[in-house]
Amino acid sequence: MEPHEKTSEWDSLLVRYQMVRQKTEELVAPLVIEDYGVQTMADVSPPKWHLSHTTWFFETFVLAPTGVPQFHPHYRYLFNSYYETVGQFWPRNQRGWLSRPTVAEVFVYRHAVDERIEKMLRGLSSEDFRDILPTVVLGLNHEQQHQELLLTDILYNFSVNPLKPLYRETRLGDKSPPPEAQWISFAGGLQPIGYDGRGFCFDNETPRHQEWLDPYQLQDRLVTNEEFLAFMTDGGYENPALWLSAGWQMVQEFGWKAPLYWSFEDGEWCEFSLGGMRPISWNGPVQHVSYFEADAYARWAGARLPRESEWEVAAGSVSVDEGTFLDSRRLTPNAVKGATDGRLRQMFGELWQWTQSSYSPYPGYYPTSGALGEYNGKFMSGQQVLRGGSCVTPADHIRPTYRNFFPPNARWQFSGIRLARDAHD
Amino acid sequence: MEPHEKTSEWDSLLVRYQMVRQKTEELVAPLVIEDYGVQTMADVSPPKWHLSHTTWFFETFVLAPTGVPQFHPHYRYLFNSYYETVGQFWPRNQRGWLSRPTVAEVFVYRHAVDERIEKMLRGLSSEDFRDILPTVVLGLNHEQQHQELLLTDILYNFSVNPLKPLYRETRLGDKSPPPEAQWISFAGGLQPIGYDGRGFCFDNETPRHQEWLDPYQLQDRLVTNEEFLAFMTDGGYENPALWLSAGWQMVQEFGWKAPLYWSFEDGEWCEFSLGGMRPISWNGPVQHVSYFEADAYARWAGARLPRESEWEVAAGSVSVDEGTFLDSRRLTPNAVKGATDGRLRQMFGELWQWTQSSYSPYPGYYPTSGALGEYNGKFMSGQQVLRGGSCVTPADHIRPTYRNFFPPNARWQFSGIRLARDAHD
Amino acid sequence: MEPHEKTSEWDSLLVRYQMVRQKTEELVAPLVIEDYGVQTMADVSPPKWHLSHTTWFFETFVLAPTGVPQFHPHYRYLFNSYYETVGQFWPRNQRGWLSRPTVAEVFVYRHAVDERIEKMLRGLSSEDFRDILPTVVLGLNHEQQHQELLLTDILYNFSVNPLKPLYRETRLGDKSPPPEAQWISFAGGLQPIGYDGRGFCFDNETPRHQEWLDPYQLQDRLVTNEEFLAFMTDGGYENPALWLSAGWQMVQEFGWKAPLYWSFEDGEWCEFSLGGMRPISWNGPVQHVSYFEADAYARWAGARLPRESEWEVAAGSVSVDEGTFLDSRRLTPNAVKGATDGRLRQMFGELWQWTQSSYSPYPGYYPTSGALGEYNGKFMSGQQVLRGGSCVTPADHIRPTYRNFFPPNARWQFSGIRLARDAHD
Amino acid sequence: MEPHEKTSEWDSLLVRYQMVRQKTEELVAPLVIEDYGVQTMADVSPPKWHLSHTTWFFETFVLAPTGVPQFHPHYRYLFNSYYETVGQFWPRNQRGWLSRPTVAEVFVYRHAVDERIEKMLRGLSSEDFRDILPTVVLGLNHEQQHQELLLTDILYNFSVNPLKPLYRETRLGDKSPPPEAQWISFAGGLQPIGYDGRGFCFDNETPRHQEWLDPYQLQDRLVTNEEFLAFMTDGGYENPALWLSAGWQMVQEFGWKAPLYWSFEDGEWCEFSLGGMRPISWNGPVQHVSYFEADAYARWAGARLPRESEWEVAAGSVSVDEGTFLDSRRLTPNAVKGATDGRLRQMFGELWQWTQSSYSPYPGYYPTSGALGEYNGKFMSGQQVLRGGSCVTPADHIRPTYRNFFPPNARWQFSGIRLARDAHD
Repeated sequence: MEPHEKTSEWDSLLVRYQMVRQKTEELVAPLVIEDYGVQTMADVSPPKWHLSHTTWFFETFVLAPTGVPQFHPHYRYLFNSYYETVGQFWPRNQRGWLSRPTVAEVFVYRHAVDERIEKMLRGLSSEDFRDILPTVVLGLNHEQQHQELLLTDILYNFSVNPLKPLYRETRLGDKSPPPEAQWISFAGGLQPIGYDGRGFCFDNETPRHQEWLDPYQLQDRLVTNEEFLAFMTDGGYENPALWLSAGWQMVQEFGWKAPLYWSFEDGEWCEFSLGGMRPISWNGPVQHVSYFEADAYARWAGARLPRESEWEVAAGSVSVDEGTFLDSRRLTPNAVKGATDGRLRQMFGELWQWTQSSYSPYPGYYPTSGALGEYNGKFMSGQQVLRGGSCVTPADHIRPTYRNFFPPNARWQFSGIRLARDAHD
Repeated sequence: MEPHEKTSEWDSLLVRYQMVRQKTEELVAPLVIEDYGVQTMADVSPPKWHLSHTTWFFETFVLAPTGVPQFHPHYRYLFNSYYETVGQFWPRNQRGWLSRPTVAEVFVYRHAVDERIEKMLRGLSSEDFRDILPTVVLGLNHEQQHQELLLTDILYNFSVNPLKPLYRETRLGDKSPPPEAQWISFAGGLQPIGYDGRGFCFDNETPRHQEWLDPYQLQDRLVTNEEFLAFMTDGGYENPALWLSAGWQMVQEFGWKAPLYWSFEDGEWCEFSLGGMRPISWNGPVQHVSYFEADAYARWAGARLPRESEWEVAAGSVSVDEGTFLDSRRLTPNAVKGATDGRLRQMFGELWQWTQSSYSPYPGYYPTSGALGEYNGKFMSGQQVLRGGSCVTPADHIRPTYRNFFPPNARWQFSGIRLARDAHD
Repeated sequence: MEPHEKTSEWDSLLVRYQMVRQKTEELVAPLVIEDYGVQTMADVSPPKWHLSHTTWFFETFVLAPTGVPQFHPHYRYLFNSYYETVGQFWPRNQRGWLSRPTVAEVFVYRHAVDERIEKMLRGLSSEDFRDILPTVVLGLNHEQQHQELLLTDILYNFSVNPLKPLYRETRLGDKSPPPEAQWISFAGGLQPIGYDGRGFCFDNETPRHQEWLDPYQLQDRLVTNEEFLAFMTDGGYENPALWLSAGWQMVQEFGWKAPLYWSFEDGEWCEFSLGGMRPISWNGPVQHVSYFEADAYARWAGARLPRESEWEVAAGSVSVDEGTFLDSRRLTPNAVKGATDGRLRQMFGELWQWTQSSYSPYPGYYPTSGALGEYNGKFMSGQQVLRGGSCVTPADHIRPTYRNFFPPNARWQFSGIRLARDAHD
Repeated sequence: MEPHEKTSEWDSLLVRYQMVRQKTEELVAPLVIEDYGVQTMADVSPPKWHLSHTTWFFETFVLAPTGVPQFHPHYRYLFNSYYETVGQFWPRNQRGWLSRPTVAEVFVYRHAVDERIEKMLRGLSSEDFRDILPTVVLGLNHEQQHQELLLTDILYNFSVNPLKPLYRETRLGDKSPPPEAQWISFAGGLQPIGYDGRGFCFDNETPRHQEWLDPYQLQDRLVTNEEFLAFMTDGGYENPALWLSAGWQMVQEFGWKAPLYWSFEDGEWCEFSLGGMRPISWNGPVQHVSYFEADAYARWAGARLPRESEWEVAAGSVSVDEGTFLDSRRLTPNAVKGATDGRLRQMFGELWQWTQSSYSPYPGYYPTSGALGEYNGKFMSGQQVLRGGSCVTPADHIRPTYRNFFPPNARWQFSGIRLARDAHD
């Protein structure tokens, strides 16, 4: 390898490292100190914890193996999320108990690790650089996942506060009604699924393998708030025949009556958002629904949710760049604009789309070896796959083969609904 | 249709009805009155409830639609399991609260409904008979499922009692060690999966459809108690790296250290069974393990669990008649006997085999319409498929396409482990 | 001691032993086998358990110390209620899990212990008889407590069953309205409280000591169902200002709206009882209310509950024989009959009367030494004292100094309300 | 009333108001912003909430009745603790969910209310001043209670953090061993109990009334850490015979093995404190024990806890000024110093002393009318009385008749043990 090559590859990684790390800090800029420590349910982490844990990831998986000493003796424990191989971890549902380290101390930790990473990277031989590169890249993708979670969790934390804090002013979507949804047909057949070898992927997207698909159809856009309201008005939340049994239990136990952030105030349906409380944008896609709600809606509509393979094959025809991502700073999904044109729309960005597929290993899948094998594989039980990214996903983080996963009752993610049906319907 | 045809079809159904109903009553014959009402966990039903609920099924879905009045005004509510369409139901975890109706009254109920069913069947026109036949047959298959559950639940109820009651004397398995397990290879490819049109099936086995399978291998027999002990001795229950995250939580929360009914007494591992407490039969297949344990064992063994499609394709080469079923009255799985011969063994009977497949709808699946659509479809969330039947399954109840399903933490079923791996391993 | 004396004392104890033990068995005679094993909440014990535990008491505390071998190796564990000194015990909330021993086996146990007790007693020297007498008498009083609990628990078990089983036909109370309640005045002053040395007592009634009482008044009869209905109609269950904080939590958490066994059916308030479901007897005393309800009612009525010392001093003026006890076989409290006469009525029998006194040790109290010290003393936390006995208390079991105790939220006891107030009111 | 009198009374109240309010703010000065919002158990409130709630008290009970408009529309709800009469309140166990209002906003709220209170007070007529004075004084005493709770809760919040934050450097106690405890005798007899009319009191200290006391003895000092260690070493936490039944349940359920903040580190018992983690001061009084532990210790020591009347009568002989209070800024109880002199020591300040008395109304007690009647009376169930104040109680807040109360399992208060026994022992 020539010196100038080294320079360019090194520089490229360093630039990307700095940009991603910087982006995370930009996302918390609108917060006041008090916002950083709050945890209002077990699935949510305090913003401060996200800042620390992403740093811990680089320290534990990049620095520690090269012998760099720990920044702080307790952080290995406090900011470990769930890596049993690394050791014990502070209980997940008690992350909000820790007033210390302070926000300032957390930033000191971040910057110290940044400095060490940059120093270490600069000092590497080409060979060592090759060895460590995948872990650094994984760490950056990991941090991007937490960028989305940061906003998702801030929204939830704010939503339970009667003062309804504002994260940032946002613009509401288009007022013009979206075109009627159209069904787009796909022939199915024996199809390649999974990571195609280009760029980064998580281990759960591998190996590329074949799946047989019967002919199917997808709707060309996401289900809108207006369509979902029709489900509600038709008694969707009161009719057990529309629901999976486990979903119906949720409806009854938690009194679900509408998507997570909807409330009926002064004769009008409103939605709490990162932009504060505001009237529902009826043309926009319905968001913050669980798999159970998506599934019940689909049944009510005489359709079903797509399998993840169906979604992935269909997504092959669409450019990833089209959607609304974190980079747009809109923080809210866009309504479909313009006339129907026979193409799939809103496949990327906007909202994660629940699929009918439970989160399982692909044929031939093996987790990464070592502690990082715990990243994805051990969660392949009791979760559903979501596809496509959302308006709070970094644009360069998403790809057609990307598999997100959450429990079927999760509602606080930026999740929406795309309908599917068998082609012979 | 000719009269003599009617006679023979009628008679055949009636004979089968009587045999199945009679079989259920034989199964409870070893019980004392006190045993009929006990419920020691929410997933277990008292024997009395099984007797009533299977009767309720015929009354509700066969008799009621033809206008036959209810036997008792409260039974529609008390013995409804989960059919929201039928109406409210007594809470599942409170089935053990009801000393009344008495056992004798439950038998009176059974026999009254039997009489009404038989009378009704005899009086039907050919056309009406055709209409009602599927529901009666469904009711019989439903009752056979509860025959297995009866024994499963009796075993659990007895197991928690320090007096360790005996259901019935049983014989222990063969003392000769089983042959080393062999891997049998399957080519995979595009394969038909699901109900093939012959005989009865539940709606969840439909429609027949194609699935692509990569080449794979299955072990020719089930994992034995001796093999599972090696997993335990090797720290299997202490090593989180072997477990799914949700499984590891169970291990910690409930202190799992061995299969459900094992206990270490006086220096020896014993197992509680329908035949009472007895030494482990080391050659016999390990039973009463959860999906999480089966999955952890497979990982420890450098293998994985089969997908249900892999299992089904492989099972096509095996006769359903070979295994140990309820009809044998053994109540315990047999050890493999005789030398290896390149064929799959213990595929049917013996123990339900956990698969890697979550319980999901087949492509093109639609539940039966009406209340009976709640039979299977609404449980397609959070459960794993098991295949093959067990030593407490009626022999004529099982078939290669049969899909049983339980939550991944369920241990009280007669469930065991068959290993699979990718062919290129 | 002369021989004839021995004979008479011996005989007297034996006769009493046989009568009490026989009485218990009479109380379960109306049950069917299925009723004996049911436990519908943690505080309730299955009838079978009461039969066994009272027997266990004699076996453990009378027979075992004299070297009589155990009847069954597991019973010491299974039928121990809470005596840590004796050893471990089967979990209280799982008493309904045990179908075995059967009812028949429990009776065999009872009769075997009866035989051993009788044989042992007959064989004792005078000295040994003197030694053992207090424990036998304690065992008989213990069994009498369980006679009441048997009925209390049977009622609760039956009440949750939609079939509303009948324990035994009972007569409703008098239809004539009771006289207006009158206040009876007591001077107070320095008063002796506690066991006066005559007959049997539990250790918690000792020692006799002095307490200072300010002048006070008690109502001459219990609060009636009609009076309690006025409280309900006036929004008593909706007004937090009437309730202790912990009581108001109960109201909200459990949706209390009326006394435990009341239900509003077909336009009429009904009450479930050992005599089945029946219209409220408006003249009868309100029963099955918690301390919290009694306290809230008293506050609503501008009064308070009596302190236990006030109650005891007042009770000195009343004959214990007057009330309705178990011996009457009425199983339901009587309404007051006849005109007011300036005397306290319904002080004994009818219903236990909640007092404002928490269950605490008397000055100078020390528990019995040894395991029997656990009988009463260790429960002196978090409970309220009730006085007077009820319609299901054996008549010869009660006395003015008797201290019953239950947690303030307990409703399934035969508990009612007597009002008190300061004399200067 | 003469003008100059008004001036002096007005001024005196204003000065006291300012001092108390200022004191609260001084107590939070050592905190960083992040510390203000944390709530690590339901019984603990975030420091920010204490600051707001005490302000809410003045706003709600002093300003609002005079027509002063609300400072903020949501605060009436958010900072109401438990006053049902005032309206609904934010759930107690979710006080840590609120990042907003910020700490700065809370201080703005405090100072705005301070300004309004001072303005209002200055503007009052003598008559109106007389009317409002008791409520202002109550508010100041209320704020003093929260000063203690602030420190108590900060300590708990800090204690669960592995970083073991320091509130403020404190000095350890004397190293010289305390003198052997002596028993001081009291004659008992008919004694006046309760508020004697001098100065402020809470309604639960009224009315003054008589109680009869048998002769009794109190130990002249509190139980030390060294003495408590002897209890531990002797198996105190493993012996159920020493415990109340409800206490033994706590020991088992929560694994109590030592006082709340003790931990065994590097071969040494340490204690977490407001001064950080430090070795146990063996001469100092044992602190942060529950009633159950205090009661078990007393039983082990062959003694008992005092009744509150016994404590109060004995305390009459002692000056309130002697102990360690908040004002000393020690934040930790002092060991007894100097030789025994036949007098009671450590009666005030140091640690709250658990009494055997459950928290009940005094004879003739009636709560204050209106919402403020909820201050004390509604908690008279399920709690135990503590007496004497602690090292974090303001010195001018305590008096001999003061009744503090907590549930018997509470350990996070500054609570200790004084032994009592009957005089004839």
